[in-house]
Amino acid sequence: MNNLSKENIADWFKNLQGSICEGLEELDGTSQFTEDIWKREDGGGGRTRTIKEGHLIEKGGVNFSEVYGPTPEKILDALNLEKSDFFATGVSIVLHPKNPWVPIIHMNVRYFEMTTGTWWFGGGIDLTPHIIIPEKATLFHRSLKRTCEKHDAKYYERFKKWADDYFYLNHRNETRGIGGIFFDRLADESNVTKANRWEFVKNIGNLFVPIYSEAVDGLAEKEWTNDEKKWQEIRRGRYVEFNLVHDKGTKFGLDTGGRTESILVSMPPKAQWQYDFRAENPNQIQTQSLLKKGIDWVNYK
Amino acid sequence: MNNLSKENIADWFKNLQGSICEGLEELDGTSQFTEDIWKREDGGGGRTRTIKEGHLIEKGGVNFSEVYGPTPEKILDALNLEKSDFFATGVSIVLHPKNPWVPIIHMNVRYFEMTTGTWWFGGGIDLTPHIIIPEKATLFHRSLKRTCEKHDAKYYERFKKWADDYFYLNHRNETRGIGGIFFDRLADESNVTKANRWEFVKNIGNLFVPIYSEAVDGLAEKEWTNDEKKWQEIRRGRYVEFNLVHDKGTKFGLDTGGRTESILVSMPPKAQWQYDFRAENPNQIQTQSLLKKGIDWVNYK
Repeated sequence: MNNLSKENIADWFKNLQGSICEGLEELDGTSQFTEDIWKREDGGGGRTRTIKEGHLIEKGGVNFSEVYGPTPEKILDALNLEKSDFFATGVSIVLHPKNPWVPIIHMNVRYFEMTTGTWWFGGGIDLTPHIIIPEKATLFHRSLKRTCEKHDAKYYERFKKWADDYFYLNHRNETRGIGGIFFDRLADESNVTKANRWEFVKNIGNLFVPIYSEAVDGLAEKEWTNDEKKWQEIRRGRYVEFNLVHDKGTKFGLDTGGRTESILVSMPPKAQWQYDFRAENPNQIQTQSLLKKGIDWVNYK
Repeated sequence: MNNLSKENIADWFKNLQGSICEGLEELDGTSQFTEDIWKREDGGGGRTRTIKEGHLIEKGGVNFSEVYGPTPEKILDALNLEKSDFFATGVSIVLHPKNPWVPIIHMNVRYFEMTTGTWWFGGGIDLTPHIIIPEKATLFHRSLKRTCEKHDAKYYERFKKWADDYFYLNHRNETRGIGGIFFDRLADESNVTKANRWEFVKNIGNLFVPIYSEAVDGLAEKEWTNDEKKWQEIRRGRYVEFNLVHDKGTKFGLDTGGRTESILVSMPPKAQWQYDFRAENPNQIQTQSLLKKGIDWVNYK
């Protein structure tokens, strides 16, 4: 069993879940995670940790899973793979903060392999502020860029664009938030080994607590108005729309008999919809104007 | 231009929208509809009427549309049709009441034709109580059955089953509500003419105000607890899940560049999600147990 075996990768992800939950409990200050262990009928299972009604986090989930067995037909078809068994493991996180000034964050790191020998990594981190603060967006993207550049000078640009394209609500003509990085099906290439990919994915996983701590810094104590709370709930409605209409991970999970409660832990605690709602005040209008692809956040302004 | 021309059908639907809005304003007692007229880039348009913050209705929409032009590729593929122009018209309604004891209702009546000569009707009415009251469910299904039986002794049974199968959340193993009737692609058959189908669809459209008045009767004034309000918002979350994950009409509308605000007028005003929420009190537990296919509501108990 080498360093890059599926067992080692799964173990590392399991430990990552543990250290992230510890880091988030410290950041939250008042609430703790509770745990559900679940089994998957056709092989494997997971450990879902959730937190609610904290000082910082109103509702959040940190999922670890390690599932395997015959590859579901829908996945074979969608990914154009030949029939064989699969193994998939990863950590995925969505946190919905209480304060409308604090951004929603999402992270996912995952590994997939088939008995045919095919394997890849996927993942990313992206941020969805209810109210975009450009200086904060710049800090967030600079942190991602620094971590990417340890591995490849082109990763940041490539994965930032991928996030812009992925986290996009076609039916609203807007991005989900300020994006971040997204990558999928990263296998070996001429100059990149599996060990190198794995190092990158581990660094992204390890970046989660520090990058969210930075994103949250100075905002959790900020006072908010009723208007900002309403706007938060409307933006959460868009988050719901993205996850249920567009997100491929959610769709696959629900289609292939994944554990519904673990998949939909990404849903916000409370959301609202108003017919034809338009941004009303300067913060909302600025936010709406910044929900688009291709903004160079690293060098913004 | 005969009685069954697309222009006449569209006109009738447009008038239906008018009479339903009048009926609902009377039922609500305090709020009025406002209107948006919109055009579709590739042909046709619609008239969306919405109501909010009424005594009875917290948020609701009554859409009329009449759209035409080259049939979108996605529709040709999904319905296995040959390339040609289409014409579609209909009325669709979703009402989200304020009081958790009052059910959500949905109705749709629609007509579709192609320049190739193919045509059909579709539609239905279904009810989604937050708290199921079996006697009320029986009244609702008996009204549907009576209207169906004016046309065909087998319509009710057939279309009731269709609704059970259609309004089903696979990922939750539950129906959206108590169902109703659902039908699609009703064309002419050996013993059924187009005139006959059209009479049926008109009768369903005309049934909307009386059947909702009956469903609401005695409930709008009922007092509710915080617990019932929370449960209402959780059930609305399931309504969101159905519409965004499963509903074919919503998916097609968003995929084919329909007017987003008119399509998503079906979203509830406020919804909530809690991780792994379980029904807590007798009303909730009874409701949860009745969210299944195949209940014979007409003869219940």
